[in-house]
Amino acid sequence: MKTMEIRNLSLDEIMNFTSERLNHVYKTYLDNTTSLELKNAMEYSLLNGGKRLRPLLVYATGAIFNAPLENLDVAAAAVELIHTYSLIHDDLPCMDDAAMRRGRPACHKKFGEGMAVLAGDALLTLSMQVIASHPAPLKADRRVQMMDVLSQASGPYGMAAGQALDLTVMTDDSISTRVLEDIYRLKTGKLLASCTELGWLASKDDDENNLDAMRDYGRHVGLAFQIQDDILDIEGEGEDTGKPKNIDSTNQKFTYPKMHGIKSAKERIEKLYNQALEAINFMNDDAQILRELAKKMLMRKS
Amino acid sequence: MKTMEIRNLSLDEIMNFTSERLNHVYKTYLDNTTSLELKNAMEYSLLNGGKRLRPLLVYATGAIFNAPLENLDVAAAAVELIHTYSLIHDDLPCMDDAAMRRGRPACHKKFGEGMAVLAGDALLTLSMQVIASHPAPLKADRRVQMMDVLSQASGPYGMAAGQALDLTVMTDDSISTRVLEDIYRLKTGKLLASCTELGWLASKDDDENNLDAMRDYGRHVGLAFQIQDDILDIEGEGEDTGKPKNIDSTNQKFTYPKMHGIKSAKERIEKLYNQALEAINFMNDDAQILRELAKKMLMRKS
Repeated sequence: MKTMEIRNLSLDEIMNFTSERLNHVYKTYLDNTTSLELKNAMEYSLLNGGKRLRPLLVYATGAIFNAPLENLDVAAAAVELIHTYSLIHDDLPCMDDAAMRRGRPACHKKFGEGMAVLAGDALLTLSMQVIASHPAPLKADRRVQMMDVLSQASGPYGMAAGQALDLTVMTDDSISTRVLEDIYRLKTGKLLASCTELGWLASKDDDENNLDAMRDYGRHVGLAFQIQDDILDIEGEGEDTGKPKNIDSTNQKFTYPKMHGIKSAKERIEKLYNQALEAINFMNDDAQILRELAKKMLMRKS
Repeated sequence: MKTMEIRNLSLDEIMNFTSERLNHVYKTYLDNTTSLELKNAMEYSLLNGGKRLRPLLVYATGAIFNAPLENLDVAAAAVELIHTYSLIHDDLPCMDDAAMRRGRPACHKKFGEGMAVLAGDALLTLSMQVIASHPAPLKADRRVQMMDVLSQASGPYGMAAGQALDLTVMTDDSISTRVLEDIYRLKTGKLLASCTELGWLASKDDDENNLDAMRDYGRHVGLAFQIQDDILDIEGEGEDTGKPKNIDSTNQKFTYPKMHGIKSAKERIEKLYNQALEAINFMNDDAQILRELAKKMLMRKS
């Protein structure tokens, strides 16, 4: 299949298509690893039936800019490897202490805490290895830019900082909406936002206006997605989200809907959704796939 | 100072010189991080008075091939960030459960387990960020090669796999010397060996014979270094190594000197030391600095 043809598929079809491609990348990189136990722990978490929304964003963006599919494989695998490592470490007893993940025992419950720490470390490192070594026709400077975007989004200027603030600030009931939104952007927003940037980097497009649009779109969707997540935590049923209802309340963490109420949180999502659409407005029909995707992500029930 | 002048310094002088340069890189990247607590945990572990042997290997190799100092900063910081993250995670209660590191409370004792997990994650991610974003005059293809070498050495084909085998196999008293050496190579050998390769990559040299020599030297020194570490764990005094004596015995792990006795372990180091020297024999006086370094690393008392 050619990248452009992705645009003719339904979102469910794209999801199946991208999942198959991702599984192939994972298999290539994991089949010859040295520790069977480590491999099992990594695979258990990678193949846990997650929605793989981040890869979907990568491939959808790539479809707009006609990026080679193999370049998109690199970007999508890298971001999903990082997302997956973060879930494993988040679930640890010393972090969110979650025993279940998507209806199955969390990685540390299945393989032990030490192995879960290592599986997370190994997945994070593997994301770097995939970008550096995948035989895709991706130029070195674009690989470097992908690493830059991903490490900014997930390290001490991104996700890891968001998690640290989560541990230290989020139980403080005096935090402002501004600070809360900053933490949201760090915790999940930046990594989600990086997906559209990665999709663009995988292509040969060099129009910076397009890159800016991808960044803006990603930024708005990323923040809205996290607020939506917190609403689901309150409203959603255990079976749908696959994790115990109200886990954040149990941990006494501050969230947007708890600060402002669910109605106001939904209005905030609506506004961010509109801003995301506005950012890509100039792209006309080409970007239709991202409009559908934003709708799907922000109207989800799990 | 010019890179070539490093050759005229004593090893102690090089160590001071490289430490100052490293501290500068760390400061540049950490000063504007978003979470103060995360930054403190990262700095606490980065500035713990460690020997920084890996950076020393990088700069020493760079001195041979006249690599730009800023390129060496990138490589040295990246490998030390990875080494430091691994120590933090190793010390966690679910891993080696070590309360002390170099005479001070381990990171998780000082900042809590959750923050220690995040500090490790953030350091690992930062190593990627430094390679991708440092303004050194380092070409994109060499940056990508550095990432490839480092991720191979530290991820599911390297250190993480070694640690996983350590958790699962090392308490089994039926393991062979061959398997034990394989685990050693994965656990510490490959990352140490990567230092000379990184030093070469930081230069403009493109003679593959030199790269091969650097790899061979690194491989022999890396394995010998780990065996030496295990001898020190048995022989060394708590004050020197900064960690409780016999910690590996307490954890009932198998080590080379425990399997073969200290005398035989020292003979193995001697043999590896000679092989390391042999690998760089053709380089004559140019490589004198690596000969001294091998001697220092393998004859150390702490």
